[in-house]
Amino acid sequence: MSDAKDVNAEVRLRAKRTRTFTNAPWEPIVGYSRAVRVGPFVAVTGTTALDAAGELVGEGDPGIQTRQCIENIRAALEKVGASLADVVRTRMFVTDIAAWEAVGRAHGEAFRDILPATTMVEVSALIDPRMLVEIEADAICAEEP
Amino acid sequence: MSDAKDVNAEVRLRAKRTRTFTNAPWEPIVGYSRAVRVGPFVAVTGTTALDAAGELVGEGDPGIQTRQCIENIRAALEKVGASLADVVRTRMFVTDIAAWEAVGRAHGEAFRDILPATTMVEVSALIDPRMLVEIEADAICAEEP
Amino acid sequence: MSDAKDVNAEVRLRAKRTRTFTNAPWEPIVGYSRAVRVGPFVAVTGTTALDAAGELVGEGDPGIQTRQCIENIRAALEKVGASLADVVRTRMFVTDIAAWEAVGRAHGEAFRDILPATTMVEVSALIDPRMLVEIEADAICAEEP
Repeated sequence: MSDAKDVNAEVRLRAKRTRTFTNAPWEPIVGYSRAVRVGPFVAVTGTTALDAAGELVGEGDPGIQTRQCIENIRAALEKVGASLADVVRTRMFVTDIAAWEAVGRAHGEAFRDILPATTMVEVSALIDPRMLVEIEADAICAEEP
Repeated sequence: MSDAKDVNAEVRLRAKRTRTFTNAPWEPIVGYSRAVRVGPFVAVTGTTALDAAGELVGEGDPGIQTRQCIENIRAALEKVGASLADVVRTRMFVTDIAAWEAVGRAHGEAFRDILPATTMVEVSALIDPRMLVEIEADAICAEEP
Repeated sequence: MSDAKDVNAEVRLRAKRTRTFTNAPWEPIVGYSRAVRVGPFVAVTGTTALDAAGELVGEGDPGIQTRQCIENIRAALEKVGASLADVVRTRMFVTDIAAWEAVGRAHGEAFRDILPATTMVEVSALIDPRMLVEIEADAICAEEP
């Protein structure tokens, strides 16, 4: 009986929601977090190459933009007690699939030992025409926050 | 030893699958559910602005379509014992990124206190040219069904 | 006290990561797995209609390509101790939405009794112009590996 109670306790723990934000002006309007953690599960919002001041990094350079996206994802994960090493899936939306190798190599620099599942597709537009890549991540952490 | 057995019991519980459908004519052909729940995890199918009769709501209006998508997602979640408050991620596929603010504001009306992770990208087409937005959701529930 | 330790043990179990690869030449460069399993959760990479030799199957035929994608997903799932029956979500990126019925019917052949959540959107390009469809899958397994 006490065991059953413990399982419930763990399920409740899982339901505690931790969020992080990047203070973009449209975050409260659109109603989203940069990352949401529930128990060991983390969902990271589609992330572009904006720096902390909201300025785009790497205009015209998909490799630099990819590195900045991943740095932003790393920062978001760390704010909810996770890390890049916990990432199980990334998803890369690019605006020109011809840039796949530059984007892919930058992904590999960060993920070559982590080896998440991934996807790369070309979409017709991201929210700002200077953005060449937007990346999402899902993570599953070893430890509770 | 009995503890180990309890953990197994919880894993089996998680594997029980609950589904809901919207009775679209192509659901059995394509082989999908509107939403699938396994334990506390819910995956909601990419959802457009169709009403219960299968008619598109908000032709030409991305904000109205977004509200209808989210109402459909809410209904699907409720059919599997979940709610919008459990949503940890949404993904918005739009056909014209210039509509981002109308879509985003409608998302914010529903999610301003829930604040899931999110993504919005422009795709080149949805399954019906009158559809301006399709939205997916992932949820993690506090309680087993 | 021993109960609390057991919950921790289960969380650690979940963190064990199992991966599978398809030996594509760009896998180590881009840094990804074909599938990643952590406990009962499996993420399958966006998968196209390549055969074991890396040759595209079904050039010009979206239905045949879809069948090959799903066979590749099935093989990846089986390598991490899962199966198609565990799939809770698929996501189909197609390059021509007019092919929705051929793609959808091939999806239905494999998933008509499994009925995952799904999404189909048209993207502007996949990584090779001969690829007409790319499919992702998420699975939740009943049993630990």
